[in-house]
Amino acid sequence: MLPRVYVPQATSSSTTVRLDDDEGAHLVRVRRLGPGAAVRVFDGRGGEWQGTIETATHGVVVRLDGPVAPAPEPRIAYTAALAVLKGDATDEAVRDVVMLGAAAVRPFVAARSEVSVAALARGGRVARWQRIAVASSKQCGRAVVPPVTDAVAFAAIVAEPGERRLLLVEPGIPGARAIADVPAPYAVTLAIGPEGGWTGEEVADAVAAGWTLVRLGDRVLRAAAAPAVALAACQAVWRD
Amino acid sequence: MLPRVYVPQATSSSTTVRLDDDEGAHLVRVRRLGPGAAVRVFDGRGGEWQGTIETATHGVVVRLDGPVAPAPEPRIAYTAALAVLKGDATDEAVRDVVMLGAAAVRPFVAARSEVSVAALARGGRVARWQRIAVASSKQCGRAVVPPVTDAVAFAAIVAEPGERRLLLVEPGIPGARAIADVPAPYAVTLAIGPEGGWTGEEVADAVAAGWTLVRLGDRVLRAAAAPAVALAACQAVWRD
Repeated sequence: MLPRVYVPQATSSSTTVRLDDDEGAHLVRVRRLGPGAAVRVFDGRGGEWQGTIETATHGVVVRLDGPVAPAPEPRIAYTAALAVLKGDATDEAVRDVVMLGAAAVRPFVAARSEVSVAALARGGRVARWQRIAVASSKQCGRAVVPPVTDAVAFAAIVAEPGERRLLLVEPGIPGARAIADVPAPYAVTLAIGPEGGWTGEEVADAVAAGWTLVRLGDRVLRAAAAPAVALAACQAVWRD
Repeated sequence: MLPRVYVPQATSSSTTVRLDDDEGAHLVRVRRLGPGAAVRVFDGRGGEWQGTIETATHGVVVRLDGPVAPAPEPRIAYTAALAVLKGDATDEAVRDVVMLGAAAVRPFVAARSEVSVAALARGGRVARWQRIAVASSKQCGRAVVPPVTDAVAFAAIVAEPGERRLLLVEPGIPGARAIADVPAPYAVTLAIGPEGGWTGEEVADAVAAGWTLVRLGDRVLRAAAAPAVALAACQAVWRD
């Protein structure tokens, strides 16, 4: 895979683009590329171009040689609603759902999340997750960078309408369906809880609001791995 | 979930078991439990018991109060054949395939693995992965600890017979099937490659030996996450 650079200001009428400092420094200092080197440029909205480094002094400028077919996006729009986990564990979840093609990432604070919405806002965590989403799209070949929205309370997620809304629950919660029993939707929101699981009230609220409870096997999944596991299961079952 | 302790020497005729030093220290120093506290004991072979700490001085002794139903194992026996990854990345893969119910973990050295079988043996890496398997079974509620076998060359994995052998390949490799098109086997070996992917020769050798190429979506998966993603996809499709 050619080195890929994220240039949100690129458009189909651009002939050259100037990289921001981080992207440019990565190409020149880490990858040790200079004028003449071939790269791929993507805009994070589904556009991708073949490019050639023109200059690498006083900032890196890339000439766009023409559009290329981007990696196909999933057919189904997956919104990954992720409970904020302890420490940096949410980073892994964000990285992996982006790798699997999530259309949007919605962090939320569950009853058993050990952090508040206010603390997340002060800590710049959403900006960090958005950078992780860029890095993950770059690495996995996506031309789309999904938005990571501001963290909200779980109640706000539950109240949002959606074509199909799935709450992943632990083994043993009654009323949960296998994902293989859920018909393929055109869009889905998949909510994954924190380390300690959902409270009974959260599960009841989701059911009352029309969410479907789903389960994955008979083992307790590691919280940071559960989002990717659940998304992969949906895509496999729905042939996406 | 009650604290779970791994006691491989427990049997159905045991009335008390003495914990090894690490397991005992964890209960007493980290979990701060003492005589009278309830725990679960599992033997790593599918046996699980309700237990009570009897003494916690000069080693921890647990009384077995009776067998309990272990968490169900998957219906299909999954052998996770994992290319050794850079640094500690294989740790994550081992932990997560055990969490998903793998029956065996078989590390191997692929052409693009950046380590040799000899270096792995010298470094005690397999013993480390076996400890990670114990910790993962403990955390996810399994009563089975799958064996982690000694690392071998990929050629040895390819040559082994199996009911159904699947090689996960990157997007764009011709001849690969969607997992949803593979009928449910009673046992399956799932081989996942290293960071740089398989060589053309490795893919050709596997095909010649009767392996089936499978793919997962259109994005390049992070090597450490791919094993769990692939296993979850199989389980979802095969309703396991």
